[in-house]
Parts: sequence; C-alpha cells; structure tokens
Amino acid sequence: MSLTDGSAVDVAFSASTASRRLATLSISARNEALTALHDALLRNKNYILDANARDVKSASCAAESGNFNQSVLKRLDLSRPGKYDEMLQGILGVRNLDDPVGKVTLRTLVDDGLILEKVSCPIGVLLVIFEARPEVIVNIAALSIKSGNAAILKGGKESNESFVAISEVISNAIAATHVPRSSIQLVKSRDTIASLLAQDALVDLVIPRGSNDLVRYVKENTKIPVLGHADGLCSAYLHSDADLNTALKVIVDSKTDYPAACNSLETLLVHQDCFDSILPAVAEALMLKGVSLRCDPQSKAALTNALPAMKANLIQDAIDSDYDTEFLDLTLAIKTIPSTSSPVSDVEVAIAHINEHSSKHTDVILTRSREFADLFMKGVDSAGVFWNASTRFADGMRYGFGTEVGISTNKIHSRGPVGLEGLTIYKYLLRGDGHRAGDYFDGEGGKKWKHEDLAKHP
Amino acid sequence: MSLTDGSAVDVAFSASTASRRLATLSISARNEALTALHDALLRNKNYILDANARDVKSASCAAESGNFNQSVLKRLDLSRPGKYDEMLQGILGVRNLDDPVGKVTLRTLVDDGLILEKVSCPIGVLLVIFEARPEVIVNIAALSIKSGNAAILKGGKESNESFVAISEVISNAIAATHVPRSSIQLVKSRDTIASLLAQDALVDLVIPRGSNDLVRYVKENTKIPVLGHADGLCSAYLHSDADLNTALKVIVDSKTDYPAACNSLETLLVHQDCFDSILPAVAEALMLKGVSLRCDPQSKAALTNALPAMKANLIQDAIDSDYDTEFLDLTLAIKTIPSTSSPVSDVEVAIAHINEHSSKHTDVILTRSREFADLFMKGVDSAGVFWNASTRFADGMRYGFGTEVGISTNKIHSRGPVGLEGLTIYKYLLRGDGHRAGDYFDGEGGKKWKHEDLAKHP
Repeated sequence: MSLTDGSAVDVAFSASTASRRLATLSISARNEALTALHDALLRNKNYILDANARDVKSASCAAESGNFNQSVLKRLDLSRPGKYDEMLQGILGVRNLDDPVGKVTLRTLVDDGLILEKVSCPIGVLLVIFEARPEVIVNIAALSIKSGNAAILKGGKESNESFVAISEVISNAIAATHVPRSSIQLVKSRDTIASLLAQDALVDLVIPRGSNDLVRYVKENTKIPVLGHADGLCSAYLHSDADLNTALKVIVDSKTDYPAACNSLETLLVHQDCFDSILPAVAEALMLKGVSLRCDPQSKAALTNALPAMKANLIQDAIDSDYDTEFLDLTLAIKTIPSTSSPVSDVEVAIAHINEHSSKHTDVILTRSREFADLFMKGVDSAGVFWNASTRFADGMRYGFGTEVGISTNKIHSRGPVGLEGLTIYKYLLRGDGHRAGDYFDGEGGKKWKHEDLAKHP
Repeated sequence: MSLTDGSAVDVAFSASTASRRLATLSISARNEALTALHDALLRNKNYILDANARDVKSASCAAESGNFNQSVLKRLDLSRPGKYDEMLQGILGVRNLDDPVGKVTLRTLVDDGLILEKVSCPIGVLLVIFEARPEVIVNIAALSIKSGNAAILKGGKESNESFVAISEVISNAIAATHVPRSSIQLVKSRDTIASLLAQDALVDLVIPRGSNDLVRYVKENTKIPVLGHADGLCSAYLHSDADLNTALKVIVDSKTDYPAACNSLETLLVHQDCFDSILPAVAEALMLKGVSLRCDPQSKAALTNALPAMKANLIQDAIDSDYDTEFLDLTLAIKTIPSTSSPVSDVEVAIAHINEHSSKHTDVILTRSREFADLFMKGVDSAGVFWNASTRFADGMRYGFGTEVGISTNKIHSRGPVGLEGLTIYKYLLRGDGHRAGDYFDGEGGKKWKHEDLAKHP
C-alpha cells in the first residue's frame, strides 16, 4: 500500500498499471500476500492501536463538545474487546474463500481446433470511499487482493491516524510479496475525491461504504458505475390468508431486530381482511417493543377499535411522505390494501405500491398461498423478495457468501448482497490455430460452425 | 407497440409499469406474442414494404443531391432480396432460444425450511436508440419480449415511414396477446431523446445501436448504464516465435475480411525479431489486398529493405495518433516491439501498449508458446483476447449465442458480444416459514446456519 497525495490522474494511472500485473498473479501469490498482511497486522497491533487511540481521543473531545456522534465514536475504536482479532480473522476468512478469478463458465468448440472460453477475471481498479470505521481499510485491501483488483481507498478524516498506521504496515507487508505496491493506495486529501470520481477512463467501479448521504453524493457526482445502495426502504405485505404466528414472527423481527439497518422493515401493507384476525396482534407485539405506528385512516380505525387499552401515542396518523421514508428507528408506516372480489388484484395493488415506493432492496409477503407468493416474487422489482421470512436475512454472511462487499440496489451487474463475485467480470478467450472468419459462410466451400458445448473443466 | 409523442416521463412510467407485468408472464405467453408478431409482419409485408419504399425514395433524392450516404441508403431498403424474410426468421430464431428468465444459478439451504435462490429475471426498461436500419425495430421488439423487458425505441428519421408502419402492425399483433401494449413503445420526436436519457429512475439500460458518434453521445449524456462500445480498436501482437502461416492467415483475415467492422484489426505490434522472418510476407499479403501500412521508423526500414519492389505509396510513416485511430478501412498502423534479452518482458511491453491504446474490444497474440499466450490473455484487459485466431470471430453469432444484442466494452455487467443473457439480471428469493434473523447467534440458545448447497433443479 502506498500513501499518496499525488494527483488523481497519477493515482488512478498507477492503480491501473498495478491492476494489470495483479490480474496475471496466481491464486497462491495472492493468498501469500494475504498471509503477509495478516502477520504484519498481528505483529504491529500495539503500533496500530496507539494510532487508533489518538483518533479516539480527538473524537472523544469533539463528542464532549457535541461535535461528534457517539455511535460513530464507538465504531472508530479498534481496542474494543475482540475487535482487532475479528479484523485479523477477516483476512484469513477471505484467504480461505475460493478463487473468484479464472472460473470458466462457458466452453464452446466453435470449430475443430477453435475453442472459446468465458472466464471470470478482475474488474480492474476499484475506488472505495468510506467513513469512520478503520477496519474497513483492512477488509477492502484483503478483498481487492483476493479478487485481483487494485484499490484506491479514501477514508473519513476521523480515522486518519489509524489509516496512516495501517497503510504503512500493509505497504511494508506487500512490498515483500508479488503484489505490486500501487495495488492498494490510500488517499489522504479530501479534495482528491471529486477528481478521482472524474477518472472514468481509469477507475472501473466505485464502492461507497457509509451513510446514505455519502452514497447519494457519490452516485450524483460520477460517471463511473457505483456499487451500493443509498436507501433501504423495505416493505412487508400482509395478505388476507397469512398465518398469524408467521406474520407475528416475521414482522416483529424485520422491524425490531436492528432498526438502524438498511434491511429493516419500514412499511407494512395490510390487507383489509386482516383487520380483525391478524393486525391487532401484530400491532400489539410491535408496540410492546416500542414501535410507533403511522397508520392510514382505515388501519388506524381498526386498531383503535381492537386495542382500546393501548397507549394512543404509539398509534399515529400517517402522512404521504411516511411511505417514502426510511425511518431507521422504531417507527413503522402502515397502509391498507382494500379488499376486492379478486385476491389476485389485491396482491397486484400491493406489488404496485412496493414498486413505486420501495428502494428495490428487500420486500416480503406474508401468505399461506404459494401462488400469491410466486406472483409477488416475480412482480416485485427488488434485489430480495421473500416469502414468510424476515427482511433481516438480506445480508451476505446470512446468505452464506462468506463475505460481503456491500448491498446493491442496481439493476445491472450485481444486485443484493454482493460477495467477491461482484468484484469480477469475465473475458472471452479464443484459442485457434490460424483460424480465419472469412472461411465460414453458407454455400459451396464454406466451413460450418460446430458450436458444441464442452465440459467446463477439461 | 404504441406510437407515442407523450412526455418522456409518461413514456418511461408506462414502460416501467408494463415491465412489471411482463416480468410475471410465462415463457409460453412471451413466445406466443413472438408468434403473433411474426405472423402479423408476414401478413402485412406489402403494407410495410410500401412504407419502406417511401423512405427509400426520399433518401434516394437526398442521396442524389449529395445529402445522404449511399451505404446508409442500402441499409434502409427492406425490399432487397431475402431481407424481409431474414427479419421474419430472426423472430423465430429468438423464439426458439432458451428462456433467459427464471434460471436458478444458486440454491442454498440457509437453515431447515429456509431456502435461498438466485434467479435470473428481466432488467426492466430498455431504451434502444438506433439509426437507419428498419429491421432493428423488429429485432429489438423480439429480444425485449423474449427476455421480459419493456423497450422504448427511437429510430433514425430516415426510416420514419417504415417504423410507423411496423410499429402499427406490431401494436395490433401484441394487443391480442398477454404482453401489455406499453411493453414496446416507439418514440418519434427527436427532442425526446435528451429527456429520455434523463429518466434514470425509470429506465434501467440504454442500448445505442449505430455509429460511434451516436454511442459516444449517449454515453456522455446519461447516468443510465449504457450497453455498447464507441470504438473498436483491435490490435494484434506478432511475437518472435510466431508461425509464419498462422500469422499470415490471422492478420490478413483480421484486417481485410470486413475492414469497416468494429472487430477488424487496426494496429499490428511486431516483435523486432520478426523483421526478416515474418513481417515481409505479412506486409506483402496485406498490400496485395490494398492495405496501406503506417509504419514506425524501424518497421519501415525493415520493410523497405525486404520489399524494394513494393509500391512505396502503401508503406507510409506513422504518426503517434495512428496508434489511437480506428481506421475502419484498408489502413493498418504498425509498431515495433524492440527485442530485449527477456521475451517475457517483450510480451509485457506489447500488453502495456494494448492496455493503453486499444479500446478493450478484442486483441490477439500470434505465438507458438502457450506460456506467452496465457500471459497475454491474462494481462490484456479486453473483452476478447485471442490466441492465433482472427479478431473477426468476436461476434455473438460466431460465438454461438444465437443472437447478439450488441458488443460491450464495459467492465461490469456484460462484456464482449452480448446475448439475451445481457438483458437479464437476478434477484434473490428467500422462502421461509416464519424465520427470524434474531434467532441466529453464537452462544447458548442461538440457532446455527446450515448454508448447504442444494441442487439447482429440484
């Protein structure tokens, strides 16, 4: 890793050059660099924790004078029990993953002696912009090296001392391996961000990791593809035939397990036929956990009627913008899906609401019917569409990916929780023996295509 | 199909709504619409050819007064022998392809009763901007319906009469099927393009099909992802150990088979050790086909020496910009790769030149060595990297994809010749039975993840 305040073009160009070298390294060379990274960070634990303590101290002073968020302060602190070891274990976890590069996903005999392969390969140069958490730099360095990508890193200024110490350690560790130094570059100057975001000829993918505001800023200020999500507005649709116990478990977990997460529930669509059978029990369970309910007039009337003893302050009137709001706390917007003679149409009304208002992150239907679940799962245009399961499962580790680069609400390339695979693309390799395209044509003397599928692992 | 001059937002919104409905249709419903499309275009052949004749007549007048390109005029004419039938066959060809939607590429048992699937699905709304060729509208309509995407189409004004007639026929044909009318919308007004390119909340992918200038304009004027390539600057590297006959066949075919194509050769890098052994024969073969060679001083000296009898006018001095030029005609830039004591370094110099100058489309190495070929294929950052085979094979039909949506030089999502698969993305479907994420944790009472791979076809 090199620490740089060079111009954005220099940084991006050296990253691009390093990325081409990285792309030719074997998996054992890349894994050896991860081992070196791990060992160096272990050896230099005290040095890094000392630097981190200086960041924490500055932030504590700022927090005392009210200029710094307490939860950010907590995320900044690498000396919390288990934190540093977790960071080190993360590197070994990434090292143990399968090589995402060099996977053959198609092999075709185009003609005798002419074989086409589609092979996974690194994307090239990643620009990763993140905020206070110092361990992210280690995580990203590990993911980039594993996937053969060069990375340019820009962290929040609150973690500056930690970043500088970590990058120095990483830099020295990498120098003794086959991975080029410029593969991981830390950019310190804040002014460089805008000019880096303009390097669309050299940088292939931007990954913002942090607040919604950061992601939105990045998306609005670059032509480089962005992997991430600005919002996580997840919805649940409670259909008339839902099972009470299933609905209770899924809705309460989706809303209350970790309300500040992007995969938490923000809107509940309730079929009118559930007003007596299910809604009161669900509302009561939520309110017992301290959730405020922002209700439309119909659902409010139903709840006030069914739960006269509940504290009125938790049942509030919804306004239109509540259905477009990611509350990120113990607040839930509730909207009625009116009952018609066609349950299919009712499901379609719920689907239409979600496609218009949700952020294409994760949405869930509560129903006993496989038919309605299938319709919902096809019709809702989101990265995750769930049936009778909590939105909180939308997460790379929970999906079993071993790691998570981020959660994407894009409609191309990577969607949902993104594992290492999201840091790869593919190329087509064609191996021939002097083959000419001009020899293939219909009619006399023309060669014919074979186009036979071959085994992917010869 | 509907013909529209509505506002860009209205067009994009109705396309988005149609796309959600399309996403729920079975493959048989989508294929039936393709049959209806085919039959209607067959029945209305004369009606459409009459309209096309009016376009051709206007263009001929313009061509006579020098305001219209003759080759564009030829592309405009649907009455050329076989042309119309080819267009109709194309629809049946797309109908016969496998369904690109609903493919399960991962199935995981997350825990008992909790199953995760990664399933291919349509992207949503495509905006396709193209120039004079009237059959493109039929091709795109077929590809969109097959892949479950809605499409907004904008064609060149030269084909306006043809487009209007075709869209009317398609519109009536679709009306009798399950495919919503707004799935395929033709936009007539040229002014609408800029406002459609601004609809990044509703349009998911732009596909420009036409000149480099069109693609460049689109890329520079939208935040929507663009599938395509502005340039096709393909290179060949002739290594010192290349086989003469292989080099002759591959280089001549790459350059002369169809010089105006994006997958034609524009730059030849020649290892200095080939100056006597291979370069003269290759140059002679190219010049016999009328190719002008733009040579650097070393290669020019070698050629002038070896081929004193050749017409000097075909051996010219290269200027720097020749190595960044897509000639699209019978011109080839030649550059020397100096001989050093390390052949690996020499290959790396060629790789570095290509990564800096080529357009990441398709590049080829001529060598007998598998080791050098592997290095080149890993190191060159292009959609296609070939060994001893013509660059002209870079094409969806030649790769065996059955169809081609375009050729992409993007680094994410789709790269190289793009088949139907490039018009799909995936979503994660999770089916549970009231599962809560909060039940899974380390320690006493916590449930454990299973994360078992399941067969993809249960």
